[in-house]
Amino acid sequence: MTQQHLPALAVSTVIFALRPDASGSIKLALPLVRRIRAPYEGRWALPGGPLGLNEGLSDAAARTLQSTTGLKPRYLEQLFAFGELNRSPLLQESERVVSIVYWALVGNEEAQQAIESENVAWYFADEVPQLAFDHNLIVEYALWRLRNKVSYSSVAHGFLGEQFTMAQLREVYESILGKELDPGNFRRTVEASGTVVATGERLSGAKHRPPQLYRSNADINLSDNGPLSRPQGEIS
Amino acid sequence: MTQQHLPALAVSTVIFALRPDASGSIKLALPLVRRIRAPYEGRWALPGGPLGLNEGLSDAAARTLQSTTGLKPRYLEQLFAFGELNRSPLLQESERVVSIVYWALVGNEEAQQAIESENVAWYFADEVPQLAFDHNLIVEYALWRLRNKVSYSSVAHGFLGEQFTMAQLREVYESILGKELDPGNFRRTVEASGTVVATGERLSGAKHRPPQLYRSNADINLSDNGPLSRPQGEIS
Repeated sequence: MTQQHLPALAVSTVIFALRPDASGSIKLALPLVRRIRAPYEGRWALPGGPLGLNEGLSDAAARTLQSTTGLKPRYLEQLFAFGELNRSPLLQESERVVSIVYWALVGNEEAQQAIESENVAWYFADEVPQLAFDHNLIVEYALWRLRNKVSYSSVAHGFLGEQFTMAQLREVYESILGKELDPGNFRRTVEASGTVVATGERLSGAKHRPPQLYRSNADINLSDNGPLSRPQGEIS
Repeated sequence: MTQQHLPALAVSTVIFALRPDASGSIKLALPLVRRIRAPYEGRWALPGGPLGLNEGLSDAAARTLQSTTGLKPRYLEQLFAFGELNRSPLLQESERVVSIVYWALVGNEEAQQAIESENVAWYFADEVPQLAFDHNLIVEYALWRLRNKVSYSSVAHGFLGEQFTMAQLREVYESILGKELDPGNFRRTVEASGTVVATGERLSGAKHRPPQLYRSNADINLSDNGPLSRPQGEIS
């Protein structure tokens, strides 16, 4: 059996960060890589590449993140393995690729240090161009997973520093969900969820009634990111 | 680059069905396949095998189900891609395998027709032996996913026929969750969820107050089984 008769295996990563737009409001964004060879030469695509023989799947995803942005993930989770036959009409049958896709969060402070280069660019999630392969479908699914997951986990804390105000947390949710949230309702929902703990400290610098600072509740995991991160025997 | 320097790709399937135990009560069970070659020769393992070049991932999972049990899945969902380096200490580095795992439901009536053979046996979910590779971890995770998913979707209906009584549905839940449920609470929770519709018919054969028959609410999907089953553009 020769190599070209087996599907090849690649790992790609959808990397989410919050970045300011021209008006200064923070928006959900992701880095894309310009393809420098056929098929889809010149098109933007998700960062990724072949899985190394001595590399775990999540290690490959973290390596991709590192080489594309210079950053480490705050949160990393397997999204889905995309391997249907029709996922790239431009590939020969003998070049079939199965992509195991991860999604990741990068903290807001780190995101400001992201390296940029000629063939790497950040796009806002609502302005993603026509991508190579089935990567638009993949981005759409990753967005759905992120938006779904922030509603029942504290994964959104991954964008923030160790301490944050309720307004900062609400801004993160508003950026992810793409809509404004009522401050009072938001505060009540978050406080009732037990996912944050008041630190007793207040934001310095503010003159009148500086807002309270909160931290993520360490008793609650940021979010369940799959079977391999759990202690064996504690799954069920 | 020669073949043995790339990780190989396999597709395996955790197939759930409800089967009667010696006392006649139905229990969650899954078919296992006895390995007939090294590594782990003689051990039981999940059914599966290499992905064919002209075969989609979910097609490979359904083919595995067909060849192992002679049955078609009522429900099929991708579980996880297992590909960490340490998943099989008995494999040489050059034989590394990445397994994309699906889980499936088989209806109770169909499960009675399942083919059996010398190297295929059904095990109750709470009596799974020591399996080859990391397959115990995989079964444990599939069980967690099933138990989690029945709590917020109507995926459990996949075990039943077109019409069913509330007691039959409760028996399915009890088998999956491995515990008894209060009949009154169960009925109220299910009716409030809107996932079942009373057909207006009653179970024939019963003499006194024959129980009502229900069907799955067709307006609600059995369960969301991933990005590829949704109409494009309806993901977010």
